[in-house]
Amino acid sequence: MTAKRIWNFNAGPAALPLPVLEEIQANLIDFQGSGMSITEISHRSKWFDDVINDAVARVRRLLRVGDDYQVLFLQGGASLQFCMVPMNFLPAGASADYVNTGTWSTKAIKEAQIQGKPIQVVASSEDRNFAYIPKDIAFNADAAYCHITSNNTIKGTQWAAFPDTGGVPLVADMSSDIFCRPLEMTPFGMIYAGAQKNMGPAGVCLAVVRNDLMERAPADLPTMLRYATFAAKNSMFNTPPCFAIYAVQLVLKWVEETVGGLEAMARRNQAKAEMLYSFVDASEFYTGTADTDSRSIMNVTFRLPSEAAEQDFVAQALENDLGGLKGHRSVGGCRASIYNATPIDAIETLVDFMKNFEAKMG
Amino acid sequence: MTAKRIWNFNAGPAALPLPVLEEIQANLIDFQGSGMSITEISHRSKWFDDVINDAVARVRRLLRVGDDYQVLFLQGGASLQFCMVPMNFLPAGASADYVNTGTWSTKAIKEAQIQGKPIQVVASSEDRNFAYIPKDIAFNADAAYCHITSNNTIKGTQWAAFPDTGGVPLVADMSSDIFCRPLEMTPFGMIYAGAQKNMGPAGVCLAVVRNDLMERAPADLPTMLRYATFAAKNSMFNTPPCFAIYAVQLVLKWVEETVGGLEAMARRNQAKAEMLYSFVDASEFYTGTADTDSRSIMNVTFRLPSEAAEQDFVAQALENDLGGLKGHRSVGGCRASIYNATPIDAIETLVDFMKNFEAKMG
Repeated sequence: MTAKRIWNFNAGPAALPLPVLEEIQANLIDFQGSGMSITEISHRSKWFDDVINDAVARVRRLLRVGDDYQVLFLQGGASLQFCMVPMNFLPAGASADYVNTGTWSTKAIKEAQIQGKPIQVVASSEDRNFAYIPKDIAFNADAAYCHITSNNTIKGTQWAAFPDTGGVPLVADMSSDIFCRPLEMTPFGMIYAGAQKNMGPAGVCLAVVRNDLMERAPADLPTMLRYATFAAKNSMFNTPPCFAIYAVQLVLKWVEETVGGLEAMARRNQAKAEMLYSFVDASEFYTGTADTDSRSIMNVTFRLPSEAAEQDFVAQALENDLGGLKGHRSVGGCRASIYNATPIDAIETLVDFMKNFEAKMG
Repeated sequence: MTAKRIWNFNAGPAALPLPVLEEIQANLIDFQGSGMSITEISHRSKWFDDVINDAVARVRRLLRVGDDYQVLFLQGGASLQFCMVPMNFLPAGASADYVNTGTWSTKAIKEAQIQGKPIQVVASSEDRNFAYIPKDIAFNADAAYCHITSNNTIKGTQWAAFPDTGGVPLVADMSSDIFCRPLEMTPFGMIYAGAQKNMGPAGVCLAVVRNDLMERAPADLPTMLRYATFAAKNSMFNTPPCFAIYAVQLVLKWVEETVGGLEAMARRNQAKAEMLYSFVDASEFYTGTADTDSRSIMNVTFRLPSEAAEQDFVAQALENDLGGLKGHRSVGGCRASIYNATPIDAIETLVDFMKNFEAKMG
């Protein structure tokens, strides 16, 4: 099989490890000798039990998740969690803190407010178009939780270290940087992540939720909006998104067994990001948009001298098999998303292209 | 490629047309010359636009859906719709009718009741273990909608014709029989269906919703629980389950172009069901569990003289490459799910096996 492949810098859905795609392809008609596709086997079968249990075990090992947390596979993406988090964790009389670091934080805040939930935005970087991660935040000691977005896909910023909330559990949307580096779970009440950036195809959302938080849900919350429902049934109260969970299982296997775990993954990601940022910093043609100390190692955002140059850049890049370099439609500019599955070769190729483009245009 | 394949009678996730699986497999690494997998392309790309727009167009053609309805691809399965339907369609002061024909209807009723919504169960077949579809139902003329389950996967019953509600819009869970036969949309305010039985892999739920019903949603309903959100954004307010939608597109293409549309599909399904039911009726060893006039052409439920015989039957069937014949764990017995993708050859093979098993055991 010699399929055409490009260097894929998409922000999400994004590149997956080629060996994962090849394994899915090879087994698509007959999964594990079952005589059925992974899309055709029952979620109540031994075959699928093995898939989901292995995926859960890998999440637990990679993130060193203790028994006081449940690992859940949900649907509706991170966007559904924006409303489910306050539904589950904010009973009457309680309030929560939110930190606003960009588009996705803003949406999370909005979904709590729509429900009339009492929340407080304790910090925001909106004053400078979300180009930085706020510091020295005054958290409320009695907040039920504090919600943050660990990596801001659109603005190209990332928490380098997580804030000390003084014991208030952090709830973090990690859609665009989960598994990019080791994580210490203790400060977190919940982390969640849509799969389609660093973990698998679109259509499944991973959540790791601390047991005690799930008990706060009110009695009139529908079954499918209740985290405890998924926890009680190993994410199979109803039919789960089997194919997407299977793909996540294979990606996590790749992280563990091919890359060598999250320490190795972090070194790899750091090297990729440094290669790209150091080139941008040295250039007078390209300008990074995020503050240096708030830069994301997953989404590298930069501008060119003009919008016309940016359009040319994206178009010519694609002609050279470098795809997905257009910035989010809400902010413009350029963006290279360099998630776990993006190899260092892709960055090298991109930097070469950027040099040549600058030489031609600069 | 000579992958092993069995005759797959799973209730869901269920058999998919082999040509669909083969097309997915062939294109998994490089979708349409993009150099990316369907799991790696942006949902904002021309490539994915073509996929979802074609899927929507095929739904519209197959079900003859007019402009007064929107075709939506949702997540969370039919189970999430159980709570979203009353959230969206039952504003304060309104009530709804529900008909209880089995496990899934019962769940839909429960999710309305959990929210404290005023609903009335206007008919139920629980008195005889849901072995029939109720007749002569007294609907409430002022109900906001009337909810039914068109086919009861677990109990093996199906509405042969839909009830006349006197103008109250029907809302139907069609998870296990959508696209099994032509449908007249006019009486319906909404139909919905998890894909994993008759339409594709698990992880996407199709809904067809009448425009005026979507306007009833209250202002404090979160964005992702609001049908109008999906309608306004062609199901792409957030990242949709791209792979599952792609598979649905291919299945619908198969229904239209290979089978020849829903009239042809219905003839095929009718012939399959008749072959199996007429064998069961002629046998004294096998006994159908559903009333004759309420039988499903999708899920054929039957009992053997003893539970021990049923266990042997299921085990020996699997040894003969006939899979998924165990009844749902809540009711026991045997069940052959013979959805659209199940070919007539599968039924012939099953009937032969049943004959031989009876001869050996009877």
